[in-house]
Amino acid sequence: MADAVLIYAASSHDSNLLYKTRFQAGDPIVYIEAGGKNLLVLNDLELGRGKAEARVDEIVSMSAVEKELKDAGQAKPTLADIVARVLELRGADRVTVPASFPLEMADMLRGKGVSLTYRREPFYPERTVKTEEELKHIREAVKFTEEAYARAHKAFVETEIRGNELWYQGSPLTAERVKRIIDGYLYENDLLATHTIVAGGEQGTDPHCRGFGPLHPNETIVIDVFPKSLKTGYVADMTRTWVKGKATAEAKRIDAAVKAACETAFRTIRAGVESTDVHKAVQKTLEDAGFKTETRDGKPVGFFHGTGHGIGLDVHESPPMGKRGALLKEGMVVTVEPGLYYPGVGAVRIEDDVVVTKDGCVNLCSYHKNLEIP
Amino acid sequence: MADAVLIYAASSHDSNLLYKTRFQAGDPIVYIEAGGKNLLVLNDLELGRGKAEARVDEIVSMSAVEKELKDAGQAKPTLADIVARVLELRGADRVTVPASFPLEMADMLRGKGVSLTYRREPFYPERTVKTEEELKHIREAVKFTEEAYARAHKAFVETEIRGNELWYQGSPLTAERVKRIIDGYLYENDLLATHTIVAGGEQGTDPHCRGFGPLHPNETIVIDVFPKSLKTGYVADMTRTWVKGKATAEAKRIDAAVKAACETAFRTIRAGVESTDVHKAVQKTLEDAGFKTETRDGKPVGFFHGTGHGIGLDVHESPPMGKRGALLKEGMVVTVEPGLYYPGVGAVRIEDDVVVTKDGCVNLCSYHKNLEIP
Repeated sequence: MADAVLIYAASSHDSNLLYKTRFQAGDPIVYIEAGGKNLLVLNDLELGRGKAEARVDEIVSMSAVEKELKDAGQAKPTLADIVARVLELRGADRVTVPASFPLEMADMLRGKGVSLTYRREPFYPERTVKTEEELKHIREAVKFTEEAYARAHKAFVETEIRGNELWYQGSPLTAERVKRIIDGYLYENDLLATHTIVAGGEQGTDPHCRGFGPLHPNETIVIDVFPKSLKTGYVADMTRTWVKGKATAEAKRIDAAVKAACETAFRTIRAGVESTDVHKAVQKTLEDAGFKTETRDGKPVGFFHGTGHGIGLDVHESPPMGKRGALLKEGMVVTVEPGLYYPGVGAVRIEDDVVVTKDGCVNLCSYHKNLEIP
Repeated sequence: MADAVLIYAASSHDSNLLYKTRFQAGDPIVYIEAGGKNLLVLNDLELGRGKAEARVDEIVSMSAVEKELKDAGQAKPTLADIVARVLELRGADRVTVPASFPLEMADMLRGKGVSLTYRREPFYPERTVKTEEELKHIREAVKFTEEAYARAHKAFVETEIRGNELWYQGSPLTAERVKRIIDGYLYENDLLATHTIVAGGEQGTDPHCRGFGPLHPNETIVIDVFPKSLKTGYVADMTRTWVKGKATAEAKRIDAAVKAACETAFRTIRAGVESTDVHKAVQKTLEDAGFKTETRDGKPVGFFHGTGHGIGLDVHESPPMGKRGALLKEGMVVTVEPGLYYPGVGAVRIEDDVVVTKDGCVNLCSYHKNLEIP
């Protein structure tokens, strides 16, 4: 008997399944790899679409297997019976599943004598290296994200400073309105942005604050957008930091240091380099510019997150590029997102997406990084 | 020792967890019920938001438990160690989890001696009966859905019939454009509609076809919309069928029969009634009107799906109202969605959402059901 891979999930929520099948399914479906081939087990309603769209070697009809089991005397075959039978027909009795595999199916299969073990992420390490087709999808997501930034930027340009308030089209400009401009434009173009960050002033100094309420002039506003294409499943992940009006001298120094840190990463990233070394170089650039990372009043300040992470079908995927790292390979796509956070002063984070090449990297993002918006 | 309930999931994708905590989390969190109380185990980043927003008896600091385990000599406590410790402190060693519980966590807990069994849906049967607050959320989702229909209807009214084509604002009216009008309006109002159906002509006769391409005059167009509020998590689920131009005599007969079937359901639904009896009454109304349900050319025709299903945090939840049924209770919210599908003739499905009351039901939907759009 031989080994197999089994996934039982909805590809709308399971990137590994979508990666291997390119088949969009909102309800759980059965995917099996065995004997060097892969297959989907689909019900009658999905059979036709599966045959037309899924990039697998074979589509197995669930009802055909069910009928076979009934003919053999099983009154009411369960889905686990059907899965076990397909595995048996492929000569597989040792099965590897994702760590998130649903317990009910696991217990039922084990009850039938199937040996089931889970494998942690990255379940498919090859997902880290992108094909030309995948790069095309990521580039497309980046393009729309940059256009969304341009829409938001235009709104800031048209915004009026009234004392400590920002007014746009007759009412105060809020984080929520900026998110609506960005997310709305993306949705019109079939990308779904969830949890977009528009964090002004003190809010921005907590990288986990999504931002809310009125925005103010002359303070840093961190805008982090990471939409997923509803068509392809691929994401972009970008951050820009803006000041409407005049940035303080300190904010300008922070901004310059973060931009220098970006350049350090762009210079350091290359196939064959350990990503954690990129992170160390970025940390050094920020320290050398005089920006300390430490704890003040019980809160972390400075640069206290990773330099980046892989993107693809997920916003966060391998390789990591921080304290934990991995060997960078040609064709990986990673974010470069250094940031500095100082309560009382402000926060700047700038994030681009780059493809790792043999000699360095190619930046997929070309949208400007100007801090101030007059 | 005693029993406990354990959920480990992201509430953004797990309605049971959202139901019990009302805490929106995009990453997996740990939820435990033991000794008549419930709690969330949260990391430091989520602690503050959890204390402010989650409707649970207690928030447990993950890092505090981790520290305790480290102080007791465990070098690198895993999340499973932390969960096992919290269960131990609550005196619970028999744990019930959802059928979808992730295998890795299950195997690790079992390895530590925790007895773990899964329970199938409905995991919380009490979810079927809605509170006033839940009804308010569903009513709100219905309101925006009806407004979205009104937007689409206006577009059809402004559409011009040119031979066998429909022209709207200078170009052919397609299923995709109608979906964009509906989904876009809903998104602007913080509701996410996925897989909206706009299925014209023959497409509509397959209830699983989402619809695509140019729409045509004088044929039935089935429009099924089931958005989820991004704020509250609650859904609406409505269907209308329209004909731009003149409906055929046969389409009008089908439409009249489906409307009569809706009325049958509204008259039959009441607390204490078996929902499968509602379905049988609806089937009888359609049969009595002369519409047979049978197989023609290998395809099902007539009325071959259920009369409805519960809605709430999920688009499909208990109780079912078809071949499978359940006892209807006061406060349940179910769809009423009879339909007739005849290839070569057309399809009509009409769907409202109703609340079950002691004496009958209250229709949450008031949007008109006119078939023809001149």
